[in-house]
Amino acid sequence: MRVVVPFAADRPKTRLANVFTDEQRNAFARAMLRDVLDAIKETGRDAEILATRPLPDVDASVTVDERPLTPAVNGYLEDATESVAVVMADLALATPAALECLFERQEDVVLAPGRGGGTNALVARHDAFRVDYHGASYLDHLQIADEIGADVAKVDSHRLATDIDERADLAELLIHGERGGRAYDWLVDAGVTLSRTAGRVGVSIE
Amino acid sequence: MRVVVPFAADRPKTRLANVFTDEQRNAFARAMLRDVLDAIKETGRDAEILATRPLPDVDASVTVDERPLTPAVNGYLEDATESVAVVMADLALATPAALECLFERQEDVVLAPGRGGGTNALVARHDAFRVDYHGASYLDHLQIADEIGADVAKVDSHRLATDIDERADLAELLIHGERGGRAYDWLVDAGVTLSRTAGRVGVSIE
Repeated sequence: MRVVVPFAADRPKTRLANVFTDEQRNAFARAMLRDVLDAIKETGRDAEILATRPLPDVDASVTVDERPLTPAVNGYLEDATESVAVVMADLALATPAALECLFERQEDVVLAPGRGGGTNALVARHDAFRVDYHGASYLDHLQIADEIGADVAKVDSHRLATDIDERADLAELLIHGERGGRAYDWLVDAGVTLSRTAGRVGVSIE
Repeated sequence: MRVVVPFAADRPKTRLANVFTDEQRNAFARAMLRDVLDAIKETGRDAEILATRPLPDVDASVTVDERPLTPAVNGYLEDATESVAVVMADLALATPAALECLFERQEDVVLAPGRGGGTNALVARHDAFRVDYHGASYLDHLQIADEIGADVAKVDSHRLATDIDERADLAELLIHGERGGRAYDWLVDAGVTLSRTAGRVGVSIE
C-alpha cells in the first residue's frame, strides 16, 4: 500500500487567516504535515507527499502536481498499481493507532470522515474509485463507491475526524495533543491557550 | 455494570434556541434520548435515566434527582456498588459498536471525550472517582483520575465525540444518521437539510 499526503504548499490554512499571519500559517501547516508523516512512519509505512511545489525542507519523497486537490489525487490513483491511502496533512491529532484502524481494514474503500462532511483519510483498493473533495466529500465518496460496486468501511475516530481548519479546531489540538508534537508545541509557543467559558472550550491568543 | 443516562427534562438543548422552539427542542431531545437508550440496549445492557423530573412516557427506569448534572451524577456514583457508565442523552450518533468500545475497556476510568473538551461518556470503576462536568470536563476528569491514582483509557470515537448541542452539530446527524433513527427522522421531518457551501457542510432550515 502506498500512503500519500496531499499538501497545498502555497496558501495553506486560509481559514485560519483570522488567527495567524501568512508566515505563521505556513509554519503551522508544516508542523502538522511533519506530525502526520511521523505518525504514518510509526505504523511501519512510508508516506509520499503530493505537493503543489517542491518541499526541499521535508524529509519525505515529494511528487509535485500543481493541480487542485481532486485532480491531483485522482491522477495519483490512476497511476497507482497497488492500493492507495490518502491522508490529509492537517490531521494533527492522528496517532499511529488511529491510522492503523484505517490501514488495517480490507474493504475496497475505507473512509475516515471529517467533521462537517469532509473525508480526512481514505484507502482505495478498487481500480475505479476516484475522489471528489469538493463539498460534502464523505457523502460523495460513499455514493461513488456505491456506483462502482465497491464495499465500504467507515472508520469511527475523533482523532481522524479532527482536521485543523478553523479557530475552534485549535482547541481540539490543545486538549488532545501533547508536548513533543510539533503542531502542539508550535501552537503553545505562538501563545494560543484554552479559553474555558460556557459551552465548548475555545482558544485565546496572546 | 450500571449504565445511567442523565437527562435535563425541563430546559433541554438551550443552545439550539436559535434554531428550534421550546416545544421542538423538547421533542428533539426526547428523540435523541430514545436513540441512546436503544443503542445501549442493543449492547445487552439496560440503561437507567437520571432525570430532573419523572418521565412517564419513556420506557426505562427513571431516577429523579433535581440537582444539576454534576451533583446528581456524583450522588449516583456514591450510591453505586458496582461500576457505572454515564452516557449523555444527546449522543444521537452513538451506535452499539461505538458504545461497546467504551463498555468493554477494563481500566478504572474510561473517558470518551466530546468535541470542545466535554466528556460525552465515561465508565467509573474506581470508588473515589467523581465527575465535574463544568468547563473542560475531559481535562478535569483526566486530572481527577490522576489524583486518585486511577488508570485511564481514552475512547477515540467521532460518534461518541459528537454531542448534538449546536446548529453545526445537526449537520453531523444528517451526514452520519440514517432513516429509522428517531432523532434523524425528527430532524428531516422538521425540514432541516444539509447546506453544501464552501468549507464544512452546514444546515438549512425550511
